[in-house]
Amino acid sequence: MNLGKPVWRATRSAIQKLLSKDEALLRDNTELQASALVKQSDVTMHLPAQVGDYTDFYCSREHATNVGIMFRGKDNALQPNWLHIPVGYHGRASSLVVSGTNLHRPAGQRVTPPSKTPFFAPSAKLDFELEVGWFVGQGNPLGKRIDVADAKDHIFGLVLVNDWSARDIQAWEYVPLGPFLGKNFGTTISPWIVTLDALEEFLVDGPAQTEPAPLKYLQENKKSAYDIDLEVQIKPNQSAKFERVTLSNLKYMYWSVTQQLAHHTVNGCNMRVGDMGATGTISGPEKENFGSLLELSWNGTQKIGFQEAKEERTFLQDGDEVNMTAYKDSPAGYRIGFGDCRGKILPCLYENDA
Amino acid sequence: MNLGKPVWRATRSAIQKLLSKDEALLRDNTELQASALVKQSDVTMHLPAQVGDYTDFYCSREHATNVGIMFRGKDNALQPNWLHIPVGYHGRASSLVVSGTNLHRPAGQRVTPPSKTPFFAPSAKLDFELEVGWFVGQGNPLGKRIDVADAKDHIFGLVLVNDWSARDIQAWEYVPLGPFLGKNFGTTISPWIVTLDALEEFLVDGPAQTEPAPLKYLQENKKSAYDIDLEVQIKPNQSAKFERVTLSNLKYMYWSVTQQLAHHTVNGCNMRVGDMGATGTISGPEKENFGSLLELSWNGTQKIGFQEAKEERTFLQDGDEVNMTAYKDSPAGYRIGFGDCRGKILPCLYENDA
Ligand SMILES: [Ca+2]
Ligand SMILES: [Ca+2]
Ligand SMILES: [Mg+2]
Ligand SMILES: [Mg+2]
Ligand code: NI
Repeated sequence: MNLGKPVWRATRSAIQKLLSKDEALLRDNTELQASALVKQSDVTMHLPAQVGDYTDFYCSREHATNVGIMFRGKDNALQPNWLHIPVGYHGRASSLVVSGTNLHRPAGQRVTPPSKTPFFAPSAKLDFELEVGWFVGQGNPLGKRIDVADAKDHIFGLVLVNDWSARDIQAWEYVPLGPFLGKNFGTTISPWIVTLDALEEFLVDGPAQTEPAPLKYLQENKKSAYDIDLEVQIKPNQSAKFERVTLSNLKYMYWSVTQQLAHHTVNGCNMRVGDMGATGTISGPEKENFGSLLELSWNGTQKIGFQEAKEERTFLQDGDEVNMTAYKDSPAGYRIGFGDCRGKILPCLYENDA
Repeated sequence: MNLGKPVWRATRSAIQKLLSKDEALLRDNTELQASALVKQSDVTMHLPAQVGDYTDFYCSREHATNVGIMFRGKDNALQPNWLHIPVGYHGRASSLVVSGTNLHRPAGQRVTPPSKTPFFAPSAKLDFELEVGWFVGQGNPLGKRIDVADAKDHIFGLVLVNDWSARDIQAWEYVPLGPFLGKNFGTTISPWIVTLDALEEFLVDGPAQTEPAPLKYLQENKKSAYDIDLEVQIKPNQSAKFERVTLSNLKYMYWSVTQQLAHHTVNGCNMRVGDMGATGTISGPEKENFGSLLELSWNGTQKIGFQEAKEERTFLQDGDEVNMTAYKDSPAGYRIGFGDCRGKILPCLYENDA
């Protein structure tokens, strides 16, 4: 990955050629196939890179608006900076885990509003966040920024991200320095990185950025959104079947991944190969496109139904399993996929242990 | 460092013995001295460990109160969670640099209140923050917490930290997800780690924690504050001399480093060897103990004078050099020291380049 874009491209071409139906080398050699190709089901997936730093953004206008309406009301839904800045904060790299890793429900301090006296308990508002992550494939030295026009050459590719969130822990802790223990108990990603080159044909125009226009260092004059379907399914603890709870799309995102990277480095902050950014929860315009249970249940006030399981949820229960997938069918007839981004909630290890 | 406390202790004892005046082996062998001892001035210092994740806390009551009064007024100075939680947020590990590294002034989005329309410019409110960092020497697996009673065995030792801060960038960006580009352009630490064992004799009682008492997982029943003087000196750009601007003390801190670690892991967040925490700005009760220019200049409204340099400052100018030191004289007559934590501000590379 740290060899740079020319090597990424040459490697992709070589693999494409080897797998092509017009190329006899592998196609006609069953012995070579047996040694060169390994079944996914026969291997253990690991994180695709060693992540030095992980930054989580907040780049879906629909998501930020939904959260704003819930907590501040319709008239002040978006903060004054939101349409000027791809708002982001530092996440925790140590607790990034690969798809299939199950996580214990976190415990922590929380309050029952309007009380401001905390108690210690397992989170009762455990949530997923549907996000897409981008991996840095070429860094920048401390002090130098990455121009938005060059940002694409610095991004190796994308993964799916589930930014598990404990809403009650987060709500009590996050003023004034941001989310911390409500997030860093675990963040799940899909096991392989889909290169930006492989996604070129799904490039589309993102939402218009005219009111206001962004500052110059964030202005892009080419397509930078990706039309990729994003789906979340949940298998409730008593059920044997995953059922869809949301269908969103990466193209809904207001700030592009290249704008996120340009903003992140505009102060000279250095990126290292393997660093990861994540988009923030990607919600679309309709309720069926919302990327978190916080939004789908409108902070716990509306139940989400499951047909097969005959169950209802507001937030996640122990034993619930969440899976995210991303895919798009190309006009040429093939489907690109991101693999699974899956995890089950195990019971809290510290029930009443204040 | 990852071999654990028994090995830290045995190594420290062995070195102490070798350097003792009662031990002939090194004392009487000038040839061995010449090969075993290297002058500090002959070596290049590097970061003492590879830092996986860096977390910055906000644990000085005086600092949080000062900032609160400036931005919210006297009656709401402390946020409701502050006396219950060692408030913290994730920092950036990639831009941690060792003492002596000079940093370019960052540029970024800022506003001139009450305007809410940002412009792009170099930071005009560049500041230092006087902090102490702690290094994790023994980690914990994801999902398991570190009990506050055991936390000391997980901390290898302490360093000095200058958490450089661009107050104007921070003020515009930080709502609602916390500080980001106002901080991650660089964080300087002193080059060697002073082990907790070496600081045992400076243990004292910290501030009383009775109104309110912390939740059980944060309760400590032994001394956990350290009486160590912390000094900041500035050499203004036109001057040849460092002059003291503040003298604080680690003992002022409300939440101990062991409480910080226990809180950080109470949700199951995993620590890895080499991870770093920092205390947050350590201010004392009087103005001469304040740990940042934000407080010393009361957000730019009061000038800070320099006698030798015949200059005044509110925030840092290009060419200004900041140095932090920490020391304590032991009753036995020796002084423990942390070395320098030093850095100079270089001009911004992107003056008007919006
Ligand atoms: Ca998120
Ligand atoms: Ca700080
Ligand atoms: Mg997370
Ligand atoms: Mg910093
Ligand atoms: Ni330079």
